Amino acid sequence: MKLLFSPASPYVRKVRITAAMKGVADRIENVPTDTLPLVNEDLRRENPLSKIPVLITDDGMRIFDSHVICEYLDTLAPEPRLFPASGPERFRTLTLGALADGMLDAALLLVYEKRYRPEDKWVESWMQRQQAKIDTSLDWLEKAPPTWSDHPDYGHITLACALGYLDFRHGGQWRARHPGLVAWLDKFASAVPAFDETRPS
Amino acid sequence: MKLLFSPASPYVRKVRITAAMKGVADRIENVPTDTLPLVNEDLRRENPLSKIPVLITDDGMRIFDSHVICEYLDTLAPEPRLFPASGPERFRTLTLGALADGMLDAALLLVYEKRYRPEDKWVESWMQRQQAKIDTSLDWLEKAPPTWSDHPDYGHITLACALGYLDFRHGGQWRARHPGLVAWLDKFASAVPAFDETRPS
Repeated sequence: MKLLFSPASPYVRKVRITAAMKGVADRIENVPTDTLPLVNEDLRRENPLSKIPVLITDDGMRIFDSHVICEYLDTLAPEPRLFPASGPERFRTLTLGALADGMLDAALLLVYEKRYRPEDKWVESWMQRQQAKIDTSLDWLEKAPPTWSDHPDYGHITLACALGYLDFRHGGQWRARHPGLVAWLDKFASAVPAFDETRPS
Repeated sequence: MKLLFSPASPYVRKVRITAAMKGVADRIENVPTDTLPLVNEDLRRENPLSKIPVLITDDGMRIFDSHVICEYLDTLAPEPRLFPASGPERFRTLTLGALADGMLDAALLLVYEKRYRPEDKWVESWMQRQQAKIDTSLDWLEKAPPTWSDHPDYGHITLACALGYLDFRHGGQWRARHPGLVAWLDKFASAVPAFDETRPS
């Protein structure tokens, strides 16, 4: 399999952690992919949205986005099960994943505000709107950090990558007011060595 | 069940069409929800991302985003099966859903550019970047519009809602150069009456 990838992408990091937990990382060739230009023909051919990650399977299927790739990788080995098969557990996991992806989407839009616009086109109220999504989600999660029994699952992986991205691109400002989540992330990193192994530099 | 909802949201439309196809629409109370203000306390309490749709189940679970809600609704009745259970079909459906959601995300960002910024803060190159995602995806889908055998599935529903949103908010400009997708959407609307029934006005 090939993974269209960048070491800085938090969505790619989700996939790499999932692959490591499933024991299939050595079956994946990471293909560095630049999403910065308006047109990267190599990327656009595989995903017309020009987004990474994209997984290209050995029989030529193109799978995206990160959620779908992670679920696919989960089918390649029986243990550990990262997507509960059914019931409330499944929808709790998927909703936590969607919450953390939404935090990431907002955090990315804050980065893009400065990457893709000159300073005189920044809009404070738009940035506040994105920041509020992140802050409210952090406060909500801080009240009851999500737990796991045997091992973290897809929802936890996604949350860890969201917090890791807030460290990487937003100076870790979330840490001061969310000690419960700080402890949670430490516990996740202990349980999942791939988290530190995929830390962007 | 309660659905936090707006008639104009294409993500809500996905859920309403799914509910209709599964025969569970009459078990859902639609709760009009305003996402425009920076803070809508009622919404923020249910989803800290302040996004709709949110499904509140009878036993009090909060489920989002639209993808997760649709998958949940798919479990409430056996037929028609909207998420293939496994295999390449499942990942083909989920990837088509992710592609159409990505088109929607880009189309929303184009709307937000004008909704949340004064005109002197618009950035043409950012809008081109979003438009390119939409146009490239349309061209890609036009080459081989996705087919179904017995009935459309979740991927098709999402694509129909994306095209419907391009009609609703972007003047249907996609139609001129994509006759295959125009015919595809007509066929979808014939197969799924809920598509016309949920058309925003």
